[in-house]
Amino acid sequence: MADHAELTRRLADLVVGYGANVQPGQIVGVTTYTGKEALTREVARAAYQRGARWVDVLTFDPWVKRQRLAYADESTLDYVPGWMVDRLEWLSDEHAARVTLTGPAAPEALDGIDPARAGRDLLPYLRNTGDVINRSTTNWCVAPAPTPGWASLVYPDLDPDEALDRLWDAIAHVCRLDEDDPAAAWQQRAGTLEGVAARLTGRRFDAIRLHGPGTDLTVGLLPSSTWHAADFTTVDGLRHFPNIPSEETFTTPDPARAEGHVTATRPLEVYGAMIDGIRVEFSGGKVTRIDADRGADTLRSIAAKDEGSARLGELALVDKEGRIGPLGTTFYETLLDENAASHIALGNGYELGVGEDADRAKVNQSQVHVDFMIGSPELDVDGIPSAGEPVPLLRGGAWQL
Amino acid sequence: MADHAELTRRLADLVVGYGANVQPGQIVGVTTYTGKEALTREVARAAYQRGARWVDVLTFDPWVKRQRLAYADESTLDYVPGWMVDRLEWLSDEHAARVTLTGPAAPEALDGIDPARAGRDLLPYLRNTGDVINRSTTNWCVAPAPTPGWASLVYPDLDPDEALDRLWDAIAHVCRLDEDDPAAAWQQRAGTLEGVAARLTGRRFDAIRLHGPGTDLTVGLLPSSTWHAADFTTVDGLRHFPNIPSEETFTTPDPARAEGHVTATRPLEVYGAMIDGIRVEFSGGKVTRIDADRGADTLRSIAAKDEGSARLGELALVDKEGRIGPLGTTFYETLLDENAASHIALGNGYELGVGEDADRAKVNQSQVHVDFMIGSPELDVDGIPSAGEPVPLLRGGAWQL
Repeated sequence: MADHAELTRRLADLVVGYGANVQPGQIVGVTTYTGKEALTREVARAAYQRGARWVDVLTFDPWVKRQRLAYADESTLDYVPGWMVDRLEWLSDEHAARVTLTGPAAPEALDGIDPARAGRDLLPYLRNTGDVINRSTTNWCVAPAPTPGWASLVYPDLDPDEALDRLWDAIAHVCRLDEDDPAAAWQQRAGTLEGVAARLTGRRFDAIRLHGPGTDLTVGLLPSSTWHAADFTTVDGLRHFPNIPSEETFTTPDPARAEGHVTATRPLEVYGAMIDGIRVEFSGGKVTRIDADRGADTLRSIAAKDEGSARLGELALVDKEGRIGPLGTTFYETLLDENAASHIALGNGYELGVGEDADRAKVNQSQVHVDFMIGSPELDVDGIPSAGEPVPLLRGGAWQL
Repeated sequence: MADHAELTRRLADLVVGYGANVQPGQIVGVTTYTGKEALTREVARAAYQRGARWVDVLTFDPWVKRQRLAYADESTLDYVPGWMVDRLEWLSDEHAARVTLTGPAAPEALDGIDPARAGRDLLPYLRNTGDVINRSTTNWCVAPAPTPGWASLVYPDLDPDEALDRLWDAIAHVCRLDEDDPAAAWQQRAGTLEGVAARLTGRRFDAIRLHGPGTDLTVGLLPSSTWHAADFTTVDGLRHFPNIPSEETFTTPDPARAEGHVTATRPLEVYGAMIDGIRVEFSGGKVTRIDADRGADTLRSIAAKDEGSARLGELALVDKEGRIGPLGTTFYETLLDENAASHIALGNGYELGVGEDADRAKVNQSQVHVDFMIGSPELDVDGIPSAGEPVPLLRGGAWQL
């Protein structure tokens, strides 16, 4: 049996020490959920041990969200209290560290709730989240925190204790907690991905085409689109790793150019709601049609949020060398599933994914950022140069360049 | 066995519907703790069913506080994030409803922590809490939420399940959930207490003397000090009952006049820390000495917080007719224990406890408000008129006027 307490400590030390890279005297904003108390407390411990001035924990409860979605007046469902937006601005002004713990805390909480209503309440995501990320004022990290409810969702055939053990085993493996020095292992992997990113950036492709079963999408890039691993540096020069785990190489595409259709290869949990069997059509960069086997109205509500929410803010390629894809497990959690397969995101784009000011102004802007997974070993990915033949980038999940 | 789910629903309906008296369209600020999720969710349900616009839940975790008190730098322990103070101002500006759930959520969380450090962190109490109460802009209610940890503290000889059943039985009884119409039962009890309060106010005593085993304290009143039951009305005319349960009749004393000594008749849980066997001496209205069998340094830290924290902000008399005193149980929770016995509070005073502007300026001001219990059936209470003989008020726990 996995020693959950020991793994919780190791994960907290990795997230605080390597991921967010918390500094002495810093404020540390933590976003967490009911059910994730054990990791939250260890994150607080690790942060205070590193000299944090104050660990500012904000806890969300999916069952309180359920009461809202079940009973609150329709007209109030978009309401977000100003103090939450202001608190994030304060974290930015303070140049604070930020830690977010993810994984569906209680996936059954929104069962039976109207998906269109669920899509109206995207908390804890805030309209200034993307903007604060783009300012690079905070050193931040998002990491998974196992809960029994999440474990039973991922391993429905196991009894609850076994399922939780299995989920912890998987989290420990994909977060490289099973290495003697997890931070060193991550540094090595980040180095590899940065190498791929540099080669991709160097080719200056005009577009990327992803094609395979159910998917044929061509995504235009901006002239100065650059590729990156999840290895960021703040305006204060503080290096941090915003996702643990991360296996992706991503860029910021041209929001005006996406043509074709995609079929998601994984279901999606988005702020408590489940969306399964997603099929989306794009024309002129914009979503023209959304279908799904379950929860289509949630995704439609999200895509209708603002002008940018129906356009692409991110394109990320994932090879088969990462630790998540080979497990063949659907985690119903973007942080993990997006690192199993190539993916796109509707909504806000990262400014660090373009090199020039002229292009920075073109980066997609939105209150939302929702990734969904379209990759698989069967998905071929090509780079389309401004002139000349397509260049194979991924075949059978292996880099071709 | 008590049906905890049913009791939780009934308590939430009482707290939201009668105590805080939540109105359609209101924001509802909720302060709660990890371990109290069940009642928190039912409060959200009841509030949204009454038409709340947004239920704003803030959850505190005693185990995160422990990490701070164990590891944070000494110089940071007084730090309170500005957004929490601003959020309370916002609730006041919005004329919101407020619900606070109490009872030591995890009484063991601060075991072994230096009491002097514990006394530096009084969150979730905020420096503007007293001020917002005095503005009467919010309709609010504080109510108890049983947890297993709290139950085992109150009934250490029972097994955990039995202890939780016993605590729920006690809470149901003292909150009058065992009445067909708990709100009607409370209205009747409030009427009785208002009658006592009116008679006390009418006598215009100069001071109150409390004397019995270990205690002989004379507390001066202000010329226009008035007595009240916990039956408040906001500036918008909205009646609410700020404590469930409440059995007290209280007034706001003269912070410049308290002479004598007191011995607490109950232990005190204050923001996570335990204080037991309290003995306090007063001279010229001010605390001159604090001793305790346990946690003296916590109370000393609190009394040293500011000028007003070593003076009295409240004097409350409790008769033996209430439901809490006869149980003979120590709940280690001020909301319950203060309603078992007469008590005094160090720190901020309630402006509604004086009748005239000149006296309002004299009401004690402080960042803190800490009640502790000095009453028992053995405590005699007398009213001291400006001229003439003392008037017996309580003898053997029975009103004499």
